[in-house]
Amino acid sequence: MTDPSPPVRLSARLRDVRGSAIRDLLALTARPDVISLAGGLPGTDLLPRDRVAAALATAAADPAAVQYGETAGLRRLREVLAAVEGERLGRPLAAADVVVTSGSQQALDLVARATLDPGDPVVVEDPAYVGALQVFQAAGAALHAVPVDGGGMAVDVLAARLAAGLRPALVHTVSSFHNPTGATLAPERRAALAGLADRYGFLVVEDDPYGRLAFDGRAPVPVAAHGSRVVRLGSASKVLAPALRVGWLTGPAPLLAAVERLKQCTDLCGSTLAQSVAADLLADTPWFTAHLAALRAALRDRATALTDAVRTHFGPALTWQDPSGGMFCWVTFTDGTRPADLLPGALEHGVGFVPGTAFAAGADAHGHAMRLCFASNPPSRLRTALRRLAAAGGRPAVPAT
Amino acid sequence: MTDPSPPVRLSARLRDVRGSAIRDLLALTARPDVISLAGGLPGTDLLPRDRVAAALATAAADPAAVQYGETAGLRRLREVLAAVEGERLGRPLAAADVVVTSGSQQALDLVARATLDPGDPVVVEDPAYVGALQVFQAAGAALHAVPVDGGGMAVDVLAARLAAGLRPALVHTVSSFHNPTGATLAPERRAALAGLADRYGFLVVEDDPYGRLAFDGRAPVPVAAHGSRVVRLGSASKVLAPALRVGWLTGPAPLLAAVERLKQCTDLCGSTLAQSVAADLLADTPWFTAHLAALRAALRDRATALTDAVRTHFGPALTWQDPSGGMFCWVTFTDGTRPADLLPGALEHGVGFVPGTAFAAGADAHGHAMRLCFASNPPSRLRTALRRLAAAGGRPAVPAT
Repeated sequence: MTDPSPPVRLSARLRDVRGSAIRDLLALTARPDVISLAGGLPGTDLLPRDRVAAALATAAADPAAVQYGETAGLRRLREVLAAVEGERLGRPLAAADVVVTSGSQQALDLVARATLDPGDPVVVEDPAYVGALQVFQAAGAALHAVPVDGGGMAVDVLAARLAAGLRPALVHTVSSFHNPTGATLAPERRAALAGLADRYGFLVVEDDPYGRLAFDGRAPVPVAAHGSRVVRLGSASKVLAPALRVGWLTGPAPLLAAVERLKQCTDLCGSTLAQSVAADLLADTPWFTAHLAALRAALRDRATALTDAVRTHFGPALTWQDPSGGMFCWVTFTDGTRPADLLPGALEHGVGFVPGTAFAAGADAHGHAMRLCFASNPPSRLRTALRRLAAAGGRPAVPAT
Repeated sequence: MTDPSPPVRLSARLRDVRGSAIRDLLALTARPDVISLAGGLPGTDLLPRDRVAAALATAAADPAAVQYGETAGLRRLREVLAAVEGERLGRPLAAADVVVTSGSQQALDLVARATLDPGDPVVVEDPAYVGALQVFQAAGAALHAVPVDGGGMAVDVLAARLAAGLRPALVHTVSSFHNPTGATLAPERRAALAGLADRYGFLVVEDDPYGRLAFDGRAPVPVAAHGSRVVRLGSASKVLAPALRVGWLTGPAPLLAAVERLKQCTDLCGSTLAQSVAADLLADTPWFTAHLAALRAALRDRATALTDAVRTHFGPALTWQDPSGGMFCWVTFTDGTRPADLLPGALEHGVGFVPGTAFAAGADAHGHAMRLCFASNPPSRLRTALRRLAAAGGRPAVPAT
């Protein structure tokens, strides 16, 4: 028998995709003794497993549900999503305006592959969703970072870059309850961004998995409501269940047609079974409304528990913006502590998080920040996690309340 | 409101991906009055829907089953697949030797993206699996076609091209019960192909969704059993159910690592629910063995019904090789008839098929051939389909037997 692992030449593009530091970290935080604030996982205890199981049983009664499906997605699901997205946008959408994907990550990957040639400029946020950085690197794009502040992407900085000559093909934003900062793009910035897209001819990729997780129940008005050069990405992973692998996109018709063509050679189609379940649950308005309300309330409780515990244990050594939705709180040390240095000791004390440097779009940045996910654990575990983090940082013990 | 569909600039690569004539055709054959021999769909009536439903109910009892999963796939499924594939290969495999994908189509796409730079030469079969042509076009590859005959890919022709200087990065083959010809790569050609891969340093992509559908129950010994420069793609779609969207690959470790990295930015992970179901069914050896035996027997009956009806209605005007497994029969007119010309009338008569030209790897070829799928319909419908096809071709009516 010959060598079981011959050398394999990899494509230049793949060599450009940096490994995800987060992913390597998640392997460490998967230890049962570690409370992980690191992943971007919805709370397993908050997923509507029984309702999914019931819908699966119903779906599996249809012979067509185990067969191949249409590449663009199950008609019934596209109709429900058109209604849901149309309501967000404030204008009617048809089933043909929606393509269903394998999570919104696949929508992002397909949009990038359908529109980008190597070297094309793409604007990303800084700090950024790491999965977006990887997609654009895999597409061979030239990344240009625009900072994020408490009001989301600094659209004025983008406008200045555009005025100075930058001509991006795409501008990517996690517009609501940003990953990793939790910030939401301010209403006037949304209108300005859509206007810039029309003026300069780029596409905005509005990546919006968290919009419906607004604690006050008011999902922000999408960037796409302000203009037509916006492709919106949505996901069932944060509002129903990740294992459905249901995401979607809406946007300009020529782009949807291209994405559908590319999806066909990427994986033929999604799962009709899973798409039936998503359609059933999203179409059951009384149930879905109640589920979302309960989910938002639980997430708000978790966010409060986390920030209270941060305040208790770290006082003014950490600053943050209170989350108003989503899953993440971005905290920054004011005393010079570098979370990357804190992490090994934190893991030893049984708590994990992601240092801010992992989200830097360009060179080393965000060295004093870290992302804490409040969604994956109930309040009591979040409090324990912060006690452990404080102990790892050598901070004086605070009695449990 | 601005123009709802602004122009969108598409990537150069996407412009190279030809539309699938088959796909356009499937839209026509989806009419309920048309019996389709066109698609590559397993028979819906042969899918183990009840068993899938039971396994889904079991899987959904585990809270982790609705959460995100590992990018490389559920550990338990990788273990089962390692056992199954190891048995085919005649050497032990470990779970780490398997990456689970969204159908084998995604495995093919990821392998292409992980290994190919634009312009890289890739050898494809002629006629070819159209989904492979699209993947390689999307990767910007330069395609080189090698003919397929009754013994599968003409490996001697490939050897001559290699000797003349061709240096492909990949050589793609549907090695068993070929799509579209039904041919199986002869044993001596398998060994020769693996030897050429070692000698010239290319990777063989052994695309094998049909191997276990051998009518005699003897799955051919894989090309990968003869050498190490082979990546094998497998699929649950033809032996369990397409809606699971479970495929997999085994091969050189550096390639698997690259595919896993790329899959992470492509769709994060597959569905733990669906992967649990696949693991349960594949691990239930008594059930799976009996299911496969029944499936093979049904497919053999369908193949026989199809070829008997072809003989009855067309006599010597059509030639073919009797299928020995899989889903397809490739029939060629000896009287100058061009199936592409026959198709509109055939659809009017209520029967669909795919003209051979749709599978041509290069310029116009296979103008007298057509692919007939015998898997999707029971024998009585296959007989009706052939009667309709004969009528469309203006052939004398033969009484139903």
